[in-house]
Amino acid sequence: MFSGTQFSLYPMTAEFVPAILRGIAALDAYKDQVRRETDDLSTLMVGPPDTIVRAMRDAFIATASKGDHVVLSATLSRGCPGESDDPICTAEAIPPMKEGEDLVASSLARYAPGKLSGLKASAQISLYPLGTEAHMARIGACIDFLKRAKVFDRSKNFCTKLRGDAAEVFAAIERSYLDFAPANAHVVLTITVSANSPSGS
Amino acid sequence: MFSGTQFSLYPMTAEFVPAILRGIAALDAYKDQVRRETDDLSTLMVGPPDTIVRAMRDAFIATASKGDHVVLSATLSRGCPGESDDPICTAEAIPPMKEGEDLVASSLARYAPGKLSGLKASAQISLYPLGTEAHMARIGACIDFLKRAKVFDRSKNFCTKLRGDAAEVFAAIERSYLDFAPANAHVVLTITVSANSPSGS
Repeated sequence: MFSGTQFSLYPMTAEFVPAILRGIAALDAYKDQVRRETDDLSTLMVGPPDTIVRAMRDAFIATASKGDHVVLSATLSRGCPGESDDPICTAEAIPPMKEGEDLVASSLARYAPGKLSGLKASAQISLYPLGTEAHMARIGACIDFLKRAKVFDRSKNFCTKLRGDAAEVFAAIERSYLDFAPANAHVVLTITVSANSPSGS
Repeated sequence: MFSGTQFSLYPMTAEFVPAILRGIAALDAYKDQVRRETDDLSTLMVGPPDTIVRAMRDAFIATASKGDHVVLSATLSRGCPGESDDPICTAEAIPPMKEGEDLVASSLARYAPGKLSGLKASAQISLYPLGTEAHMARIGACIDFLKRAKVFDRSKNFCTKLRGDAAEVFAAIERSYLDFAPANAHVVLTITVSANSPSGS
């Protein structure tokens, strides 16, 4: 399998360079599990899908830690048939899908934000199961999960809006990414996560 | 059909509010063709798919006009079966796909950036044809078009990087969005467009 993300950090401050570098430095904790590469547009991370989400969470929290308005925007992708398998991308975190299983209940049972960060976040996310005519059913199940998750804010056109502690929001993102398509499927998830917005989060 | 975008402007400056408002004001020129709604995370625009891209181009150029580093991030969607048809979303701009047609050649022939803006932009884009097992072939044709377009920079994992005048970049985005899936298909295109980056564009 191949799994990873292209993600970007946007600190709305003239001091955006040190803020971004603070976020990127937080990724060092994952350097044994994740390969990465940064250019002028985004940072590529390649690694296990759950670890990728947690690494982004830590980068986001570090970037926003000085109180500036910060947005993280990312495209996560797993199982793309156009990418070669990479042994760093272990798929063990993706639960097997059982025939007749209630995916929403299973996902809610797995949802575990852990220690809260103290940073409030607002987010919107969209799931794209590719290569299947059943994509709307999978998207619908993911939205049902999000509606029942503590962090649900509201449905929007093209995405679902979340709000909560950054640890809770990224935990819901992780479950959305892992639980609604099998380990061998091609799945894309796009996320926008914001903190410290003057428009309110 | 239903067609639109959720898009965001990220000016990397302490004066980000007036910069964003300058971008949003540029959308007024499209108010008869596009319905819109802004919250703390993004602006929704609903309207014809070609007009949506041109309106975003104008918002991006207006936001970046003072020289600050600015990024536009957007998800464009057309034909989502979960959204009700909306008469404002005319599909006339989407060319009919003929049996055996060379989609890449047709798209290159239609590529028309018009008047250059004078603003250099760097971008990365990803096309997601949904609800079909043939999604990789359509993505491949779009990438072939981008590789032959003047604005091609390089292939990246999960996306294709472009570089050129903002008018050229958005013209390539418009063709990528319109030309590689039929008018009744469900298609998502995600874009990240950057100007005035200190890391170079």
